[in-house]
Amino acid sequence: MSKLLTDLIEALRCLPGVGGKSAQRMAFHLLERERERGLRLAQVLEQAMQRIGNCTRCRNFSEEPVCPICASSSRDRQVLCVVESPTELAAIEQATGYRGQYFVLLGRLSPLDGLGPEELGLDLLTERLAEGEIEEMVIATNPTVEGEATAHYLAQLARAAKVKPTRLAHGVPLGGELEYVDRSTLAHAFGSRQPLG
Amino acid sequence: MSKLLTDLIEALRCLPGVGGKSAQRMAFHLLERERERGLRLAQVLEQAMQRIGNCTRCRNFSEEPVCPICASSSRDRQVLCVVESPTELAAIEQATGYRGQYFVLLGRLSPLDGLGPEELGLDLLTERLAEGEIEEMVIATNPTVEGEATAHYLAQLARAAKVKPTRLAHGVPLGGELEYVDRSTLAHAFGSRQPLG
Ligand SMILES: [Zn+2]
Ligand SMILES: [Zn+2]
Repeated sequence: MSKLLTDLIEALRCLPGVGGKSAQRMAFHLLERERERGLRLAQVLEQAMQRIGNCTRCRNFSEEPVCPICASSSRDRQVLCVVESPTELAAIEQATGYRGQYFVLLGRLSPLDGLGPEELGLDLLTERLAEGEIEEMVIATNPTVEGEATAHYLAQLARAAKVKPTRLAHGVPLGGELEYVDRSTLAHAFGSRQPLG
Repeated sequence: MSKLLTDLIEALRCLPGVGGKSAQRMAFHLLERERERGLRLAQVLEQAMQRIGNCTRCRNFSEEPVCPICASSSRDRQVLCVVESPTELAAIEQATGYRGQYFVLLGRLSPLDGLGPEELGLDLLTERLAEGEIEEMVIATNPTVEGEATAHYLAQLARAAKVKPTRLAHGVPLGGELEYVDRSTLAHAFGSRQPLG
């Protein structure tokens, strides 16, 4: 096999979920049928890797100093949703009708990995809360041990700034069958049962 | 979402088997954790799309006028294996101990799609057979209707040049359970049964 083709197959393996076999299939597919789009991908990918940084206000991915959400005049400035990563921000934007602002931690408190308040930009978050506009902080860290510890820490920051902390509700996923829900979620959902009508 | 990020997610969909959701996951993964390798992929991909052409002798992918297999002095020049595409050439190279040469059709006879002898480079193949070195032509087109028609045509070319045409054996895949083998393969395998010991 030609050197450049071998290099391409190897390079494609940086994509998540792509092993040697899919990488080879992708390389041949692009060469045989999608040269134009492959070239376009190369160019956009290079630009994205070089130019996408983080918003100076919310730390979400952005190629501008201030991202479109922070710059928007139509988003509610009284609610701030704190997430661990841009992936979760995108999931909330796509699934919910949330129209407030965000703050992205780019991680979660994890002292063993060297992730403390400074790495998560909590000084920036504290400044933001001190501006006085925010009334509610929706804490949307993941429901893992570290995510919960982070949520606890964030709630204290919020209270210190006289901001109301809230947390996403836990429970049985909509359309989820009880027998397939994990035990701790089921226990939580049972304990948090709500009165009907 | 930032414009460049949206463009990247859209561009990643040129990869086979990658829909909107995986494209988004790939983009976030590269931005969050693999900038260096993402940049390397962009550069190799651009070079590959621009510089990989076809070998002037066998039509396999190559960034040189003559590919490494055609240029090799250690490959058997008396056997020529004809395949539809570089993908099948790679599969044969990786799975078998074949040490002969190749010819890649870059398609199969399909008059409705405008693919005739000229598009498949059969003039080049005829010249190659006329050189007189080749003794056997292994026809490894796919066992589809068009692949079989192509095999039939190729066998005639070979005979006209006094070259022995051979075809890959059909049958039950090794380790394949009979109940999962398609009916026509099973019928063929039964009809072509071999004496034991
Ligand atoms: Zn922002
Ligand atoms: Zn060649």
